[in-house]
Amino acid sequence: MLRLGTDMTRKSLDTFLSLYLAPKGVKMVVLVRTDLQMGKGKVAAQVAHAAVSAVLEVMEGRREWRAWLEQWLSEGQPKVVLKVTSQSELIERCRKASSAGLPCVEIRDAGRTQVEPNTLTCVAIGPGPEELIDSITGDLKLL
Amino acid sequence: MLRLGTDMTRKSLDTFLSLYLAPKGVKMVVLVRTDLQMGKGKVAAQVAHAAVSAVLEVMEGRREWRAWLEQWLSEGQPKVVLKVTSQSELIERCRKASSAGLPCVEIRDAGRTQVEPNTLTCVAIGPGPEELIDSITGDLKLL
Repeated sequence: MLRLGTDMTRKSLDTFLSLYLAPKGVKMVVLVRTDLQMGKGKVAAQVAHAAVSAVLEVMEGRREWRAWLEQWLSEGQPKVVLKVTSQSELIERCRKASSAGLPCVEIRDAGRTQVEPNTLTCVAIGPGPEELIDSITGDLKLL
Repeated sequence: MLRLGTDMTRKSLDTFLSLYLAPKGVKMVVLVRTDLQMGKGKVAAQVAHAAVSAVLEVMEGRREWRAWLEQWLSEGQPKVVLKVTSQSELIERCRKASSAGLPCVEIRDAGRTQVEPNTLTCVAIGPGPEELIDSITGDLKLL
């Protein structure tokens, strides 16, 4: 993450402002594992779990997260569901998101149906600045 | 909804207690229209929207709703996605849920993809007592 400092250039200050403080748009993405071959209803329930958990976590989180959440809610909660093909990819994207200062919540399933208990099924990244989220997940395909 | 009164029988008091004040289990159900033929990712995003909206509305709602929400969160947010085949059925189930004292949130899509703007896509009922929700949606099939 960029840090404000005496040697910060005008350009890096612009980047900092547009990425973190006054983003043009905010969104949430939820990454879902396709290798688990969950049914439509199961996927929907997992994605909903991720979205609710992300919102609750962000509410208690740092100030910029709460500002993004407010903007996201006022803009109609835009969210996009993307696919990944393995658990390791899910973990790696979440790690990158966290390093970039974005909220990321991992969802593990209780495993009563369709998957083994404690299986990592999906992650929610955001709500956060669109540009920043795209830099981490922009190459992934829509589910 | 049952009301406490001087002529309330022991049995109706028991029903009142178990249904509203100390439910055995709580859950959320999200009803999704299958007649719109939305894709997997689209359905997941709509269901997530419904779940987040329900949680936010309930947080500002009446005391029993907030108690159900707390119980639901502490029990791992159990949620079930069910299908209905038309808009009128969605509206009718939501009306019944509201009459029974349950939270119900209707989700309309902005309509940028797959459906017409302002289409009613799904409703979230709950979080609320399992027994009470089942009395309204128990006959619907899993998505």
